[in-house]
Amino acid sequence: MYRTHNCGELNSAHIGKTVTLSGWVQKNRDKGSVIWIDLRDRYGITQLIFDEARTSETLMALAKTFGREFVIQATGKVIERSSKNPYLSTGDIELLVTDMRCLNSSKTPPFTIEDETDGGDTLRMQYRYLDIRRNPIKSNLIFRHRIAQLVRNYLSEQNFIEVETPVLIKSTPEGARDFVVPSRMNPGQFYALPQSPQTFKQLLMVGGMDRYFQIVKCFRDEDLRADRQPEFTQIDCEMAFVEQDDILETFEGLTRHLIASVTGNQLGAFPRMTYHEAMRRFGNDKPDIRFGMEFGELNEVSKHKDFQVFNSSELVIGIAVPKANDLTRKDLDQLTDWVKRPQIGASGLVYVRCLEGGSFKSSVDKFFDQEDLKNWAKITGASEGDIIFVLSGNTDKVRTQMSALRMEMAERLGLRDPKVFAPLWVIDFPLLEWDEESNRYHAMHHPFTAPKPEQMNLLQSNPSEVNANAYDLVLNGNEIGGGSIRIHDKATQSQMFDLLGFTPEEAKSQFGFLMNAFEFGAPPHGGIAFGLDRLVAILGGQETIREFIAFPKNNTGRDIMIDAPSVIHKAQLDELYLDLQPLE
Amino acid sequence: MYRTHNCGELNSAHIGKTVTLSGWVQKNRDKGSVIWIDLRDRYGITQLIFDEARTSETLMALAKTFGREFVIQATGKVIERSSKNPYLSTGDIELLVTDMRCLNSSKTPPFTIEDETDGGDTLRMQYRYLDIRRNPIKSNLIFRHRIAQLVRNYLSEQNFIEVETPVLIKSTPEGARDFVVPSRMNPGQFYALPQSPQTFKQLLMVGGMDRYFQIVKCFRDEDLRADRQPEFTQIDCEMAFVEQDDILETFEGLTRHLIASVTGNQLGAFPRMTYHEAMRRFGNDKPDIRFGMEFGELNEVSKHKDFQVFNSSELVIGIAVPKANDLTRKDLDQLTDWVKRPQIGASGLVYVRCLEGGSFKSSVDKFFDQEDLKNWAKITGASEGDIIFVLSGNTDKVRTQMSALRMEMAERLGLRDPKVFAPLWVIDFPLLEWDEESNRYHAMHHPFTAPKPEQMNLLQSNPSEVNANAYDLVLNGNEIGGGSIRIHDKATQSQMFDLLGFTPEEAKSQFGFLMNAFEFGAPPHGGIAFGLDRLVAILGGQETIREFIAFPKNNTGRDIMIDAPSVIHKAQLDELYLDLQPLE
Repeated sequence: MYRTHNCGELNSAHIGKTVTLSGWVQKNRDKGSVIWIDLRDRYGITQLIFDEARTSETLMALAKTFGREFVIQATGKVIERSSKNPYLSTGDIELLVTDMRCLNSSKTPPFTIEDETDGGDTLRMQYRYLDIRRNPIKSNLIFRHRIAQLVRNYLSEQNFIEVETPVLIKSTPEGARDFVVPSRMNPGQFYALPQSPQTFKQLLMVGGMDRYFQIVKCFRDEDLRADRQPEFTQIDCEMAFVEQDDILETFEGLTRHLIASVTGNQLGAFPRMTYHEAMRRFGNDKPDIRFGMEFGELNEVSKHKDFQVFNSSELVIGIAVPKANDLTRKDLDQLTDWVKRPQIGASGLVYVRCLEGGSFKSSVDKFFDQEDLKNWAKITGASEGDIIFVLSGNTDKVRTQMSALRMEMAERLGLRDPKVFAPLWVIDFPLLEWDEESNRYHAMHHPFTAPKPEQMNLLQSNPSEVNANAYDLVLNGNEIGGGSIRIHDKATQSQMFDLLGFTPEEAKSQFGFLMNAFEFGAPPHGGIAFGLDRLVAILGGQETIREFIAFPKNNTGRDIMIDAPSVIHKAQLDELYLDLQPLE
Repeated sequence: MYRTHNCGELNSAHIGKTVTLSGWVQKNRDKGSVIWIDLRDRYGITQLIFDEARTSETLMALAKTFGREFVIQATGKVIERSSKNPYLSTGDIELLVTDMRCLNSSKTPPFTIEDETDGGDTLRMQYRYLDIRRNPIKSNLIFRHRIAQLVRNYLSEQNFIEVETPVLIKSTPEGARDFVVPSRMNPGQFYALPQSPQTFKQLLMVGGMDRYFQIVKCFRDEDLRADRQPEFTQIDCEMAFVEQDDILETFEGLTRHLIASVTGNQLGAFPRMTYHEAMRRFGNDKPDIRFGMEFGELNEVSKHKDFQVFNSSELVIGIAVPKANDLTRKDLDQLTDWVKRPQIGASGLVYVRCLEGGSFKSSVDKFFDQEDLKNWAKITGASEGDIIFVLSGNTDKVRTQMSALRMEMAERLGLRDPKVFAPLWVIDFPLLEWDEESNRYHAMHHPFTAPKPEQMNLLQSNPSEVNANAYDLVLNGNEIGGGSIRIHDKATQSQMFDLLGFTPEEAKSQFGFLMNAFEFGAPPHGGIAFGLDRLVAILGGQETIREFIAFPKNNTGRDIMIDAPSVIHKAQLDELYLDLQPLE
């Protein structure tokens, strides 16, 4: 037996007991006549003590040989510490070692195994097994487990059944790009890895499972943006015989349960906002509502005043940045540069200082008088000491630009408190969006989303006007979940594929099994999927999902620890009837 | 809202209430003046009633239109049934319908949606979504969910952390064949799908996670034997600072908990048997110990008696088949043919009838006298009324043959009671096995299994004598789990790769990351993995794993419902820099 206790559980109640611990050497302080070793495992740290008065020479000598991250086993008597450490669960005691052995030595780690490490990202990824020893990563992984357990137990109690759907499925080149898997037994044919279990969960509803969930790996072969992973985990859910409200209530319950478990706070009903309202008030379909700075539309009070920039703009928007009047001229110049960067793309930034006493000082005083600016302040809700920022241009673009500026100002002003959780349902998404590039409609959610029943008549005549019972759950400015009520009849599904530019043959060969299923008594159904990686990160008060994934990949999809992907043997390729094309 | 209750919850307490149900038409009995519809959902069946006296003509007419598997919504008053059905949870009541609508129609299903269906395997797989509506499949999937929840909650309470390991990993052409995934972003390179998360869970131990588990999909591109799936699910577990006993106790606890939850029976300590003992007593490393028929080795009492067949055999084995003396001569001829089939490959079958009064009648009376046969009976434990079967030949072969015969007789005699659970640990597996074909050693468990410490000195001189702390958990003759104590130092791991025929370069390129990790303070560790599909099937009293998988593949690895794998577009291949080789 390697241990009688772990390194986090001994306290003054154990004084006098003989125990055995195993773990890693966190620190070895050798004062000559006394040696202290901090022994660490997942559960905590216990101090080992060796001193000339009470410890044999052999043991003293052995203790001196143990460097950082050596793995050792130590037996001894629990004694009271002379100087206690109130920050440590084991801080009242130490172990006077009477027997000890080295279980494994360690080379000097390439970075320090401490809460704050000196290791850069690449080094930490290459030695991820050492990174995981660090408290922040270790507790993130434990936190992730805890959240997954909370989800599973909550949903199980609500009669949801976790059903495993297949990973080797069929390529459907709609939506994102599939990873494919050549089939040796079916030469020339390929499986695809699921981008989501969408069609399978719908078939489970057709199959009468009624309430399904699955915490499941999904795959997308996309060019990776920062903090995207080619494999990611979803909490995938579907319910039969439901309308939108049934789904929102069920998963609001789940989310409330998670937040209460993490923070102890019981949130009330989540606010709901239509997609169009979110775009109008925040310029964003996933607004962070932990803070204000809502958009004020200034068209009526800013146009026709000889300021050509506004006059020629489709939309003029202002936001009141609270208590920002201490920004210097230099700060404002810098912010102007910031919005003019290609990533944002604004042509300039108009500002209005809201001075004490109710007067205003703006960058456009030449064109607007105090009365004008007072109107702007009224519409944006600005008070004395605030600064109003104004952007103008094409509606879609200026909303996106102002949304970015709003988030940037919130970040700078510390308004994005990771300990505050502000969930929001965004509902009534448009069913379709027109894609200029491919000159056709794309499904805004996915091709299985049902049009709002009362708008079915518009589907032929005016598709872009049709909304869907599609909804996103937004938490602190991040989309953590999204879903919809689905189509459950063959005629509507065919019509949708047609709108999306599928030929009847393509629709049949790719999704024939689903349309067939709809002919055998498919119930009304709908669902939602949460991105577990992001959900966990946000609940953990962070935004970098990589810190919550045990073995993440880098931005080119590589696992640099195991060095994957890698070349394979010609024999393996031959078995799969594949040749590599020559690379330029 | 589609329903106020489900179809399984209404009882006499609800009489007088107005409720709304939704579900499928299980049966429509039209007696002219009265119509009964059995409405079904996941939770049960509720009877709807329509009669001329109380139901409108319109509703009566509508009810007549509803065929099998139509999806309908019905509102009405819960009334007491005149003839109650004690076999149905809702059997005391029925719903007098006052309002109703069709939610979806259904074509006639290709097979009956009943507990016993008329659909063949292929049809059931093609329309799996209809098969899932059948009680047996539906309850198998719910049972599987229940077992997975029990496992997760039990292990979580034991401080295990579920950590998700990556699915896109690296191909290691050792063990079974990998499925590979071409990487578009790294042209010419491939990921592999994991055959198990073996190396990652070991790295988690190096990373100090201490206790890991994961219910996880694994993949093997093997020619499929009956009831094997290319993707399967493991309960994968690993622990640090453990010896074999720690692991056996922990997972015996888990298994006992599962069996108790399923059957209500609290099993005692599981018996343990070495690999060599299992082979000697049962000819099999996964013996079914629900019944006897242990092997009696008859060499000493059967050789040198002029029976050349035995004299020239390495091993003579007998088993006593209980109360089998009512087998006719024809039965025995048929059994002789059965053991002589190429699948078994015995050269013949010797039998001894144990008659009343203590005498014997055998097929080899010419060579053996009553005293001889009495010895055989003693050694095999045969009593009056039993038949002793005797096979002989090469040790390995005759054990395998006799094991098959033993299982066959148990099957025929009904001794394999699916309601009885007889677990068994088989321990002390050999570390290596010699493979004649490739003329080298193979790892019996896998290349990461540690030799028994006390036999380390034999590793160079006599590798085939070395045993491992490797163990299988056997339940009712099926291996449901297996694992080992792992190597945790670089030198031993290198030596092992060397024994297995890896060049140092191959070892480094494939498993260098693991051997590096062993140099940074790897703790002693070990683990186990259970096959969830089989475990669930056996706990469910069955042996066909396909019946416990929502969407299984057939024996050529096809999903015939969605028709996968399938051909992909040339454009997809080009993006991956791949060409198909011409097929002959």
